[in-house]
Amino acid sequence: MRKVNFILGIHNHQPVGNFQEVFEMAYRKAYGPFMEVMKCHPSIKWSLHSSGILWDFMMDKHPEYIDDVIKMVRSGQIELLTGGYYEPIMTVIPDRDKIGQIRKLTALLKEVFGFEAKGMWLAERVWEPHLARILAETGISYTVVDDAHFAASGLDVEKLRGYYVTEEQNLKLNIFPISQRLRYYIPFAVVEKSIEYFGSCATEAGNNVLVMADDGEKFGLWPETNKHVYGDRWLDNFLSAIENNLNWIEPVTFSEYTRRYPPEGRIYLPTASYFEMSEWSLPANSQEEFEGVVKQFGDNSLVKRFLRGGFWRNFLTKYPESNSMQKKMAYVSAKIASSKKQPSGSEETTKDLLYAGQCNCAYWHGVFGGLYLPHLRTAIYQKLIEAEAALGAHEAKSGVVQMDFDCDGRDEVLYESRTQNLYFSPHSGGTLFEWDIISKRLNLQNVLTRRQEAYHKRLREFLLNPQSSGGGVQTIHDLVQVKEKNLDQYLNYDWYRRASLIDHFIHPDTKFDDFVRSKYGEQGDFVLGEYEFEASARKLLFKRAGVVWDGDKQVRIELTKEVIPLAPGFRVKYRVTNLENRDVSVLFAPEFNVSFSCHDEKQINIIKAADSWERNDCNFDLSLRMEFSTKADIWQFPIETVSLSESGFEKTYQGTVIAVLKKLDLKANSSETFEIKAEIGDSKVK
Amino acid sequence: MRKVNFILGIHNHQPVGNFQEVFEMAYRKAYGPFMEVMKCHPSIKWSLHSSGILWDFMMDKHPEYIDDVIKMVRSGQIELLTGGYYEPIMTVIPDRDKIGQIRKLTALLKEVFGFEAKGMWLAERVWEPHLARILAETGISYTVVDDAHFAASGLDVEKLRGYYVTEEQNLKLNIFPISQRLRYYIPFAVVEKSIEYFGSCATEAGNNVLVMADDGEKFGLWPETNKHVYGDRWLDNFLSAIENNLNWIEPVTFSEYTRRYPPEGRIYLPTASYFEMSEWSLPANSQEEFEGVVKQFGDNSLVKRFLRGGFWRNFLTKYPESNSMQKKMAYVSAKIASSKKQPSGSEETTKDLLYAGQCNCAYWHGVFGGLYLPHLRTAIYQKLIEAEAALGAHEAKSGVVQMDFDCDGRDEVLYESRTQNLYFSPHSGGTLFEWDIISKRLNLQNVLTRRQEAYHKRLREFLLNPQSSGGGVQTIHDLVQVKEKNLDQYLNYDWYRRASLIDHFIHPDTKFDDFVRSKYGEQGDFVLGEYEFEASARKLLFKRAGVVWDGDKQVRIELTKEVIPLAPGFRVKYRVTNLENRDVSVLFAPEFNVSFSCHDEKQINIIKAADSWERNDCNFDLSLRMEFSTKADIWQFPIETVSLSESGFEKTYQGTVIAVLKKLDLKANSSETFEIKAEIGDSKVK
Repeated sequence: MRKVNFILGIHNHQPVGNFQEVFEMAYRKAYGPFMEVMKCHPSIKWSLHSSGILWDFMMDKHPEYIDDVIKMVRSGQIELLTGGYYEPIMTVIPDRDKIGQIRKLTALLKEVFGFEAKGMWLAERVWEPHLARILAETGISYTVVDDAHFAASGLDVEKLRGYYVTEEQNLKLNIFPISQRLRYYIPFAVVEKSIEYFGSCATEAGNNVLVMADDGEKFGLWPETNKHVYGDRWLDNFLSAIENNLNWIEPVTFSEYTRRYPPEGRIYLPTASYFEMSEWSLPANSQEEFEGVVKQFGDNSLVKRFLRGGFWRNFLTKYPESNSMQKKMAYVSAKIASSKKQPSGSEETTKDLLYAGQCNCAYWHGVFGGLYLPHLRTAIYQKLIEAEAALGAHEAKSGVVQMDFDCDGRDEVLYESRTQNLYFSPHSGGTLFEWDIISKRLNLQNVLTRRQEAYHKRLREFLLNPQSSGGGVQTIHDLVQVKEKNLDQYLNYDWYRRASLIDHFIHPDTKFDDFVRSKYGEQGDFVLGEYEFEASARKLLFKRAGVVWDGDKQVRIELTKEVIPLAPGFRVKYRVTNLENRDVSVLFAPEFNVSFSCHDEKQINIIKAADSWERNDCNFDLSLRMEFSTKADIWQFPIETVSLSESGFEKTYQGTVIAVLKKLDLKANSSETFEIKAEIGDSKVK
Repeated sequence: MRKVNFILGIHNHQPVGNFQEVFEMAYRKAYGPFMEVMKCHPSIKWSLHSSGILWDFMMDKHPEYIDDVIKMVRSGQIELLTGGYYEPIMTVIPDRDKIGQIRKLTALLKEVFGFEAKGMWLAERVWEPHLARILAETGISYTVVDDAHFAASGLDVEKLRGYYVTEEQNLKLNIFPISQRLRYYIPFAVVEKSIEYFGSCATEAGNNVLVMADDGEKFGLWPETNKHVYGDRWLDNFLSAIENNLNWIEPVTFSEYTRRYPPEGRIYLPTASYFEMSEWSLPANSQEEFEGVVKQFGDNSLVKRFLRGGFWRNFLTKYPESNSMQKKMAYVSAKIASSKKQPSGSEETTKDLLYAGQCNCAYWHGVFGGLYLPHLRTAIYQKLIEAEAALGAHEAKSGVVQMDFDCDGRDEVLYESRTQNLYFSPHSGGTLFEWDIISKRLNLQNVLTRRQEAYHKRLREFLLNPQSSGGGVQTIHDLVQVKEKNLDQYLNYDWYRRASLIDHFIHPDTKFDDFVRSKYGEQGDFVLGEYEFEASARKLLFKRAGVVWDGDKQVRIELTKEVIPLAPGFRVKYRVTNLENRDVSVLFAPEFNVSFSCHDEKQINIIKAADSWERNDCNFDLSLRMEFSTKADIWQFPIETVSLSESGFEKTYQGTVIAVLKKLDLKANSSETFEIKAEIGDSKVK
């Protein structure tokens, strides 16, 4: 009789920073019902990975789930996989943290379930070949990646019927390929389709194995799947179909299979993730072109085999804000690693905060919100700032560090004190790109710049012809749904990063709306220009000699900005010097971007001749007050992005722009000064 | 005035094991003349990398070249690059050896030229992202890769006009992209084409840079290039053309450029090499398909951007012999790393032998002979065995190690003594895949199996229509030349690895010619079958219960082979047991493959009823004598491969097959034995 083995692997995870009600909904719609169905099919073995954060949630809120898992572990129905506790992308965290994250989850599985996990779920299957070594050294004997990874080594995915062994410097790791075909069939195609496919892979030798391992959220949480999987009984039917064919379909766990069968052979896998991820990690322009090529040749399986997108780590180049977070994480990790031994217990707490700050979801963006979701980024910064604060308590000095923080080959300037961190980029406009309020565990510069995304084109097309998509269960990659009208009007793209202390010179005729849409003529070259930097005892001095266009004439201007830290906050003293032998007028407009917790509709307007500006944020328990040395106009408006999430296109508030417009009449060879004080206080409205 | 910078980088290397006359020819035809031309153009700055082995040669044979380099270093005309001393593929050697190899070459450059090299030539530009860290830790500040690497990150190669910075765990490395276009233009297109291209990249800002860095052998040693580059003065003309345009083309070195200009930005590069390498590292079938796709869509630059071949490390899966060498290297490296401290000085010597054994050329195959060249593989084994022997002198015990030597998830059996190493693969026919004769520094199993190569198809097509290719200077990738007639008759492919102690059962009607061409019906399942293994004090025992087909009936056969090591050599005692209740006759034919230094024309034949077999090898100063317990027939013939080299298709002797045919009449439920003694002596003919 021809037989085949089948491994069903489920990976459950919720991001650090996600709302508790989403955790609860995911449990109610997906994790819980899935478990209930599995309980009715005790002969179907399965493999389960949950991230540590989710196990923590289950232990806290749903001990009945934990009890079920314990029972299934004991009966042998379930195999548990370890992984990074907070589901980090392994390749972009320091080695010591890779090890720490895995050990932490392995220890939990041992403690709670008495299970010695040897298999690892690799977050987003982001693979690099040298991982084999560090995983092997951490006691991992196997992991699971996509068949796309094997295709990238020239293997035919339709011939992958076992597992392989790879090695780095002779340290070995077994690797299972996930069948993309099954990942699309389960649960999206009729049950018979999977069974038929099993049949086509069954052999007399009976040693073939098919692996379907994917997000547990596909089973109930993704749009329209709850009704399909449970209401319409897809999962129950699928498992029953297997049960009816147990004489030739054998459900096994990964470990069981490796005990029974040797590897197919040795393989080396290049840097890879699943195919879709390789699309998303491309620069937006390339991504659009790549999607076009895939659309044109995707049906030609020979061509498609050799088409590849980009490399995961380039999310860090695609989104500077992702890089800022990742480098902050690396910076905090290095501080922890080099810090003096802390009181026992507190070291573990500090590391745990760091690990939580490594949770992958906020660091990238594909078809889920990810990086575009401010609450996720806020949570990452909150963890990292808290970890840093825990260390800082031992140090408590303020000071300035000059270092290449973001690894672009140019130095940044980090001012650090007990109350705040101010990170500046002298070579990029002398701007402020991180502003941590320590007591609030908050980075107020956590604003995402508006950028072109490859799918914006699809959105524009969809808005022209809404009939082209719609109901029924499709794979999530096909969905085009729009959660709000007129979204295309928000497709504005910024030509500079939405940091603070951005030194604009704008034309006096510039329209507010054009400035909002980043479609106006910048008159100066200071926004992206390189500033000299000097630190002295109590202040940071940025200086640049540049030009401002006055009609068709260039005006040479020297600008100094002196930043004097407060606790927390700062005063910035601008001195604008006209280096020409003639009088000129300029409209100077330093811009701030502040990531409040939400948008205030009243704050899209122009305030004329203001002495000060203030905003209260109850959610963050914080107020920001700005005072100006002389009256200035204020242009304020929100930065809103349009991005894709699992349920469609959506608009997201990222931060508030406060541009301070100050007309300066500069005599020949002379200066004018202008000062802004920005102070943080507690929320005045509770 | 619009300006552009130009970096001319030259990489010179000859493989460990290459003939001295080839070194000399390369000097005479390429390295020497290139230097003479450069001396006439002192205003053209250039960057030079030579592998350590080549510097050693120059110092020994051409001190005048060294003197010229010293002068150019002093005048600032030349910048030297470091690298792995023996030009290893960095990603497949242990980290400690990566560091050791680089430090050794850096030290040489410092000592001989007084030059502190900060730049590194990355052998074959085989890049993996984690290299950034280890290179940075070894004091490297920049390296040079292909624009293909950047394309693989989604960048448009036609927009690469500077260098980038990458990082691994915050350890930074600057990376220059080589222009593939210039690599093809120089020296293969008319000079004007390059100058024109420079012109198209010149800008008012003047900060663009174009890099052409490639093998120095292109300038004189590659077919037809000597006349073209020197006789027809291509190089002189090219440099003069630059000199005539020094007001807008500025020749600079890598370091100079990094001092003058900041990086373009941060980038992460996936596992990559140049485009052609990615073709070659694919499995042969995929390679053929890939070549087809590239041919079909190569002109569509949009599609081509996203087409990728395989991953370098898979040369180790494509060619098991490459893996055997690489794992031997790793084994010896681990032995050195864990060995007790040796007498000072000798440790350096041992490491130097190991490093020499890591030279990349013999480990892979593309358009040069590489792995297909026995003298290169022999040299690698010679270095590795010598390094091992140097260590072994301190140990001097014989014994058996069971370990997964080749990292395929199954244990191999290594017998090691003062006189020889015998490595067996129990799970793959209980065969002998490495046989080191210590005193000769020789692995007699260094035989390359005959495999299908993607270019064999091209050879067949060419032989049908020879007009399709011919004279003139082309890039080396286009050349189809055939160095011998009737080559297609040698396109035989083996279905098992050409090891020794391969236990055939063949049909009595099998024709010698069919056996030679590996096109005959194997009657048993022992050749690839799994053997049990037991070691006892003085022997190694392999055992398998399998089947032999007798017409359409299966005969259950148990086979034991007992290997008793000699010094050096072995006796192998075969016992073949008929497990059936009826008498059967089988034609048993254990096969040996021995890599002699060359082919003896007399040895393609059948020897009837021999008591013994002997071959003398003067070059290796060695004789192999085999004796049989009872008379047997011998089938002997060479294994010859057909492969591509820089000058065309060629046939190469890889080893000699000695198949010992023994008819065994097996009574019901009884056994027959057969014994072979194989002994190594010194050469009897000097």
